[in-house]
Amino acid sequence: MSKFWSTMVKRTEPYVPGEQDNRQDIVKLNTNENPYPPSPKVQEAMLGEMKRSLQLYPSPTADELRTTIGRRYGLTKEEVFVGNGSDEVLAFSFMAFFEPGQPIRFPEVSYSFYPVYAKLFDIPYEEVPLSEDFTLQVEQFFQSKGGVILPNPNAPTSLYAELEHIEAIVKNNPDQVVIIDEAYIDFAIESAASLIRKYDNLLVVQTTSKSRSLAGLRVGFAMGNPALIEALIRIKDSFNSYTLDRLALAGAKAAFEDEAYFKESTEKIIATRERVSATLEQLGFHVLPSQANFVFASHETASAESLYKQLKEEGVLVRYFNKPGIDNYLRITIGTDEQMERFVGKLKEILNQ
Amino acid sequence: MSKFWSTMVKRTEPYVPGEQDNRQDIVKLNTNENPYPPSPKVQEAMLGEMKRSLQLYPSPTADELRTTIGRRYGLTKEEVFVGNGSDEVLAFSFMAFFEPGQPIRFPEVSYSFYPVYAKLFDIPYEEVPLSEDFTLQVEQFFQSKGGVILPNPNAPTSLYAELEHIEAIVKNNPDQVVIIDEAYIDFAIESAASLIRKYDNLLVVQTTSKSRSLAGLRVGFAMGNPALIEALIRIKDSFNSYTLDRLALAGAKAAFEDEAYFKESTEKIIATRERVSATLEQLGFHVLPSQANFVFASHETASAESLYKQLKEEGVLVRYFNKPGIDNYLRITIGTDEQMERFVGKLKEILNQ
Repeated sequence: MSKFWSTMVKRTEPYVPGEQDNRQDIVKLNTNENPYPPSPKVQEAMLGEMKRSLQLYPSPTADELRTTIGRRYGLTKEEVFVGNGSDEVLAFSFMAFFEPGQPIRFPEVSYSFYPVYAKLFDIPYEEVPLSEDFTLQVEQFFQSKGGVILPNPNAPTSLYAELEHIEAIVKNNPDQVVIIDEAYIDFAIESAASLIRKYDNLLVVQTTSKSRSLAGLRVGFAMGNPALIEALIRIKDSFNSYTLDRLALAGAKAAFEDEAYFKESTEKIIATRERVSATLEQLGFHVLPSQANFVFASHETASAESLYKQLKEEGVLVRYFNKPGIDNYLRITIGTDEQMERFVGKLKEILNQ
Repeated sequence: MSKFWSTMVKRTEPYVPGEQDNRQDIVKLNTNENPYPPSPKVQEAMLGEMKRSLQLYPSPTADELRTTIGRRYGLTKEEVFVGNGSDEVLAFSFMAFFEPGQPIRFPEVSYSFYPVYAKLFDIPYEEVPLSEDFTLQVEQFFQSKGGVILPNPNAPTSLYAELEHIEAIVKNNPDQVVIIDEAYIDFAIESAASLIRKYDNLLVVQTTSKSRSLAGLRVGFAMGNPALIEALIRIKDSFNSYTLDRLALAGAKAAFEDEAYFKESTEKIIATRERVSATLEQLGFHVLPSQANFVFASHETASAESLYKQLKEEGVLVRYFNKPGIDNYLRITIGTDEQMERFVGKLKEILNQ
């Protein structure tokens, strides 16, 4: 603490990202990254851009990328906002749509950045408990005072809420913005983007960090009614004119243009997820039915914390949350088949199976 | 306006960046970009990084880049913060050090993003008039209530305030943070970074966009006492864990490692600036003695607004500010010698000289 710190700094409780580990040959299954590299066309596009004009500012409006993303969802660029990772897009959304004094709602077990944003911007919040099976209690999100934010699929539970449930929440908050954080949606059934033209209070946030293999490039986006997108643009243009650099703009655009590659790598991950889930069940785990690129699992006898520690010693990093209600679960990112075999091998050793 | 907009969105008055112009063969002298490409080592470093792991998150702490930048100024990484362009670093600084209810001070003629940040974060401000010759009225910044922010060299005036003046302002605000925004310092005499170990309330902000030719890459940084840097990190980690992508981290580090290239291109720009200033004076301009990569000039007979428009028609973009006190000045970025010859040629035609 320092006398120079603002009230805002003093009330922050910063987010702690998944640990980094620089050991060689580590199996890193703790931050839900994609194990496959991005489309080769991403690299080509960035190479082209690199030879152009790094000394010139990038486009402040990012029209081309917004148009490309919009096209995939049948939307115009006026319905698309892009930012420096979906974390920045979410931060701008808290600034644009939520209000000090008006409590927002999000699931009690959810992305742990939401309370961090809320504290930063002094927005009160209500954490809505999940059902015992970790599914959403949909009606509990109706008629919020200040708005709703929830991930679908939820993290770290991996559970997907059917579109009719999402729609019910949007419909029952007609005067508040409902943000659906779809970081993992490409591994699930269907995006809520199809509801955007029907509801003017729905903002759908996605990222290129997971399904597009671009965590290292920092490109997230939001889709919604043009009035919502305009609010995000006003915040961004009062904060930082150029949030996406030239390489990020070019790379993300190329990623969206290679739909075949995207489909193939996404399907590979889904197939691995299904195989790993079955194996974990055979090993005595309760595995939630995942629609994400990770699974959330609890063992019938071994404690999650001790498994996490033993796996770490063996060079396998998974995510453990020391939080009531989920403190006997591990969140395990789906890697390549080879990585998952090493993980399962270590697990079997630890469990003596 | 929309019923979904927060109070914060409603009070924004977004910044308008210098215009983009997609005409071929334009001479773009309006956004103070560097006319020379970055060091070839930047491209090499980014190529190496690109082949590594774009699918993995970048370092959230950016230790390597912070260490490299610190080394140049005799500082440790605990005294250096990096962000997505100096605009983001400035935004975080407003959040970290300035307070609603406590008026801050900045020069009346200055970087036009300051009032934009102030409105966004609801921070009151006093605009301190410049002297008639556009120099700072140093004492007017003493004993501020809420802190001080000023660019040195100032933009758009191009004038540099001697280090003793900066030190006097820092010394006479012992309980407030003084931010010196040194976007253009590498074209001037000396940075205030040398004062950081002497004053715990001094934050020096710089960018790689100008002297390092990396406007397209979005890397800015701040230097100051570790307690100030910690405040910025707390804000950043409550906002976006990973603000710099892998290529930006690698590219900016390489730019700082090639000091010879940096010196050479900076000196070229300074030499061109001196030649262009002399030529403009011969053409009847009053040119302020610039210590930046641009000049600020007013013609004895021709109006700045009409010159701006005629130059634009002729394919030369300069910056014109329709603001009382400076509305008869043009801000002209220093380009290559060839670009400046074309600019001067067009100017001569317009002035019939």
